[in-house]
Amino acid sequence: MLNYTLEELTDDEIAAEKALHRPFADAVRGLVDATIRTEVDAEEIRRATAEIEAITARLRTRQSPGSFGVRTTGRGSVRASGNAVVGLRNAVAPPLEIHQTGEGRVYADFHLGAAYEGPPGLVHGGVSALLLDQVLGEAAADGGTPGMTATLTLRYRRGTPLGALHAEARVVSSDGVKTKVAGQLSDADGVTVEAEGLFVLPRWAREQMAAAKPTAFE
Amino acid sequence: MLNYTLEELTDDEIAAEKALHRPFADAVRGLVDATIRTEVDAEEIRRATAEIEAITARLRTRQSPGSFGVRTTGRGSVRASGNAVVGLRNAVAPPLEIHQTGEGRVYADFHLGAAYEGPPGLVHGGVSALLLDQVLGEAAADGGTPGMTATLTLRYRRGTPLGALHAEARVVSSDGVKTKVAGQLSDADGVTVEAEGLFVLPRWAREQMAAAKPTAFE
Repeated sequence: MLNYTLEELTDDEIAAEKALHRPFADAVRGLVDATIRTEVDAEEIRRATAEIEAITARLRTRQSPGSFGVRTTGRGSVRASGNAVVGLRNAVAPPLEIHQTGEGRVYADFHLGAAYEGPPGLVHGGVSALLLDQVLGEAAADGGTPGMTATLTLRYRRGTPLGALHAEARVVSSDGVKTKVAGQLSDADGVTVEAEGLFVLPRWAREQMAAAKPTAFE
Repeated sequence: MLNYTLEELTDDEIAAEKALHRPFADAVRGLVDATIRTEVDAEEIRRATAEIEAITARLRTRQSPGSFGVRTTGRGSVRASGNAVVGLRNAVAPPLEIHQTGEGRVYADFHLGAAYEGPPGLVHGGVSALLLDQVLGEAAADGGTPGMTATLTLRYRRGTPLGALHAEARVVSSDGVKTKVAGQLSDADGVTVEAEGLFVLPRWAREQMAAAKPTAFE
């Protein structure tokens, strides 16, 4: 069963958390990129390794026992700072900033660098699937019928180059519990990957979410 | 068009690169996890941010101009150290160590922590897709018919808990250019996600790979 943690946070507290943790995670994103691309000598790599381990040890002196989870603010918004696609604190996430229209249609513009590579110079096919899963899921939620992924189908029309990209998705149909969503990933020359997903909200999640009343991500 | 870079490396040079860069990227993986989970105060976060930026600047004094790419050793093996799923140097990658059987069947056992979260305590549905795309693709290659993902279909049977997981895939059929592969992700209680993929090798890639003759990942 999912656990949404309730945190009573003010707008100021949420803004302060973002102002502190976004540049922190961005610094870690830069380090992830440099770790892949660096050509400095062994001595310098060993020095960096030791320094990073020391920073991590300091950060771990006080930490949550498990993953970040999903936390509700008690005022209708949700914080998923550890999310692998949109998480503010998660350096695995680009992170995507997904814009909601309120009409079951969402989009995001973003840049993918060296950390998202599969074939040389191209976005890993699985990374395209990772991002589209989140974008399609947020379209379902934006349409008023959030859910967990039941099926996801990707059609790869051509390689997606690393660089500036756009993703979007829209609700195709919904019966309130099962929502069908379609979306795509594209570069400046057009669509590279098409996606279709079915999102379903299990009863226990419906009850829990109704109690927490989350309506927007923060 | 893909570019496989040819590097003439000896076995000793490849072993030395692994011995140096695996612990380095593992340290960055630890930092990514701590960045999500830490609860230290703002002062400590700001100090860590500045220190990480300084390390990154030093690493960037000598770096490759773009992504790592895929490099062949000239002796039948391929290095994809920047790969988002299996890349030794890539802290976005868990990384998976995928075992090949030589019979179109591969498997991997691994652990996913806080950086791979979607719903609270569960693996992000898109992360399952990301990992399965790589595992299915390697099964196609293991069967002698490598290719790029043409279609990928995921069926989510239940939530996948963060923790110890197993993935496997096998070639279902192949005509030499198009290869159909099936696979699954599972935890100790059984299958959580089923996947089916079609992998196709475009002619230009066939010609390039025939010239490079890669047969195994390193």
